[in-house]
This record gives sequence, structure tokens and C-alpha cells, in this order.
Amino acid sequence: MSHFRNATRGGLSKSELEAVLRQVGAERYHIHHPFHHRMTSGALSKWEMQAWALNRYCYQAVIPRKDAMILAHAEDPAFRAAWRKRIEDHDGEDGWSGGIARWLYLATSLGLDTETVRSERLALPATRFAVGAYLSFCTNRTLLEAVASSLTEMFSPTIIDERVSAMLARYDYITEDTVAYFSRRPEQASRDADFALAYVLDHADTAERQQQAIDALVFKCDILWAMLDALQHAYGEPGNLPPGAFRPGAAR
Amino acid sequence: MSHFRNATRGGLSKSELEAVLRQVGAERYHIHHPFHHRMTSGALSKWEMQAWALNRYCYQAVIPRKDAMILAHAEDPAFRAAWRKRIEDHDGEDGWSGGIARWLYLATSLGLDTETVRSERLALPATRFAVGAYLSFCTNRTLLEAVASSLTEMFSPTIIDERVSAMLARYDYITEDTVAYFSRRPEQASRDADFALAYVLDHADTAERQQQAIDALVFKCDILWAMLDALQHAYGEPGNLPPGAFRPGAAR
Repeated sequence: MSHFRNATRGGLSKSELEAVLRQVGAERYHIHHPFHHRMTSGALSKWEMQAWALNRYCYQAVIPRKDAMILAHAEDPAFRAAWRKRIEDHDGEDGWSGGIARWLYLATSLGLDTETVRSERLALPATRFAVGAYLSFCTNRTLLEAVASSLTEMFSPTIIDERVSAMLARYDYITEDTVAYFSRRPEQASRDADFALAYVLDHADTAERQQQAIDALVFKCDILWAMLDALQHAYGEPGNLPPGAFRPGAAR
Repeated sequence: MSHFRNATRGGLSKSELEAVLRQVGAERYHIHHPFHHRMTSGALSKWEMQAWALNRYCYQAVIPRKDAMILAHAEDPAFRAAWRKRIEDHDGEDGWSGGIARWLYLATSLGLDTETVRSERLALPATRFAVGAYLSFCTNRTLLEAVASSLTEMFSPTIIDERVSAMLARYDYITEDTVAYFSRRPEQASRDADFALAYVLDHADTAERQQQAIDALVFKCDILWAMLDALQHAYGEPGNLPPGAFRPGAAR
């Protein structure tokens, strides 16, 4: 937790709390991760790009479940009505016409087959553990902490912008079509992040709760960071692939 | 899951199931992990040895909690009475005179301070996610699956033997005193593994339940493997330390 421990002694004003939350992102968001830098510099092999898409699918697929858990903990119908949009965004009208389906399209347009991606069975165990930790966090922590953990969306427009530009410019097998998932995300994420930030600033009304909100955002940054660590370790250097993980050209 | 998927089609005899379970260990137990090989060959820096002890503490500390979860799911008093010994082994008479205390002693005798280790706050997030996944598994899965996930103990006497011999022979700062934790483990683990294996062979009485038991052991091997992956990635090469993790000589 480094210097974000004990960040709220005596309590912070709303603008001070917002500044600390933004500082968490400035220091710990995965936009600073070496794997992301390798992606934006054009250094990923196609295999690594596939592994990234296949592993990240596990994260995308759990988003509506963690949002449903947040709905289940929310007593205010107006809060639920606002938060519900996130589930609609990811599942779409029929379950397979929203963000998850678009991510699946991204993965299959990289050459992966639908069943392999959807089954999640070739994902890295470390990916599954990180994604499971996120769902457990939203299950077991307070509503405030679960909402605060979503605040990484404050930082996502920049990383999406970097990612999409680089994917189109530096990887000749990637087209506008491949990255269609990202076209709607900045607008959705801004809407969602504004709502979540306002909620956190309103409800983190003691020093203890402010610290919980900060810790929740640090935790979420750790999740995203650990997912890229696992990819970098498994696919970035030879000889590190854990048993049972996705291999290039593997038809299973 | 590789070739352990669909391993039970049509159902296995007890001895066939035992053979498959032993094969899971032969292929996927972390005795085959590069970090373990580096430890036994004397290649770990003291910093890496400290990081291993500090991170592994998180695993040791959760063991009695996952065993309590197993107790909570067990309806048979005789089963509970046998399984309870595991909690006694780890917590000891007063909470700090069993296996956890001995692991803490191992860590502090490597130069770490008690509070740093016990707080778990400098552990790798990936360690926490893996350990959390183990606790969640024992919380959410069937009793059979939780018991089967403990079967890595069938393989632990060998890894402990390799570890202790190498620690004493190849690291001059390690003494018999440091590794006292391990002196009781082979006996305890054999007793526990015999009981758990007999339970699994008796209760995995359909092809489906046999597959669940195999999958649970694969899952547990993945947990142990991912913990060493995280150490190898963070500490085995420069520049990979995630934010907030244990650093050498850090006094926080």
C-alpha cells in the first residue's frame, strides 16, 4: 500500500479525497505496466496478443457478475437503476450483443476459436485467481468499497486511446473491426466513473471509510497489474508457461 | 487441464483414480517449478529467500481457515474429529505455538521482522489472489472437492526433503533452527494425506465426482505453481517488482 496507507488521518475534504484517488491511478494503474508498454511499442508477438485477449476475456466475462453483486448490495432503487446500465452494456439485449460479445469478437478476429475463449480453460491460473479475487471483493466488502474498486474507469479512456492507436498502427493483422469493442467504452466508462466517483465522495464520510475507498482502488489496480504480470511472465520469456495454459497453434 | 480433462469417462476403479491423482502430482506439483529448482541448486539470493518466506506465510496463515471451512461443511463427527487435527497442528495450543508460529520463526530468522510478515502487507498481490482462491474454493465447492484439493500433501514429503537438504547445504545463513517448521510436516502430511486419499477414493463414486476430485487437485497444483511464478517474475529478474511489494532492506 506504500504511501497510500494512513492517507486519511483526520479526514479529507472531498477534493482532497478525489486527489488521492487520482494519485493512486497516476502511480498504480496498469498503463505503467511493461506489458502495456510492449503492446504500444509494437513489440508483442501475435501469440502474446492472442494470450492477452484470451486472458482478458475472463475479466470481461466477470464484470456483469461483479456488477450484479453490487446491485444485490444496493438498497437505493435509483442507485440500482443507474448501476444496472453497466450490466446492459456488457451483456447486451440477449447476453451476446454487448461488451462481452465484442471482446469475444476481438479475440476470435485474432485467430482464436470461440469455444476456446468462452470456456476460459486455457487462461492462466493467475488470471483466474485475480478475476476471482475481484468478484470475491465485490461479494464480501461494503458497497462503498465495491463501488470504489470500479474507479479504475476514471483512468481507462487514456489507456484505451493508447491501446487502440498502437494496435491499429503497429500490428498489421489488426483492423478497425477487431477493436470495435473499444469504440463505446470511453463514453460508457466516463459516464460510469462520474457516477461512481460522486457516490464515493458522498459516502466516504469518515476517515476510515475514505481509507477503505483508497485501499479498494489500490486493490483494483493490483488486480489489473497482476493480470499483466502473469502474461508477461508466461509469454514474455521462454520456458515460463505454466502447465495447461494456452500455447500457440494448440488445437485443443 | 490438458489430458486430465475427461479422464474418468465411464468411471474409474479406486486404484485407477488413485493412479490419475498421483499422475497429476507427477506432472503438475510445484516440485517441477523453476523457482524450486533455483532454491535447491543454491541460486536464490537472500532477498529471494526472504520474499519466498514472506509470501508463503500468507498461504500458511490461511490453512487453518480453509480447514475450518472444511469442518463447517462436514456432517460426520468422526470426519470432523480427524480433520480438526490439522487446525491444531497449525495453530498450536494458543494460536502461536503451531505451524504458523514455526513458519513465522523461519521468516524472522531470515531477517524479516515479525510485524511485516504477520501483516502480509508486503506480499505480492498475486500471492494474495492465489491464497484467496484456495479459501474461496474450500468455501464454495463440495466437501469432496475441498478434501481432494488437500491431496498435494501426498507429494509434500519429497519437496520438503529436497528443500530442507538444499537450504541447509547451500545457504550459509540457514541453520537447523531456521527450518524447524519442516521437521514435523512429513509425518503430519502423511497422516493427513492417507486420511484424505481414503476419503476421496470412497466418496468419488461416480465418473462426475471422480472428475471433480481430479480437477480439484489440478486446481491446487495451479495455486502452488502460480505462487512460485509470481515470486520468480517479481524477484527473479530486475524491473518486475509490482508497486507496494517487499523490497530488500525496506524498513516500512
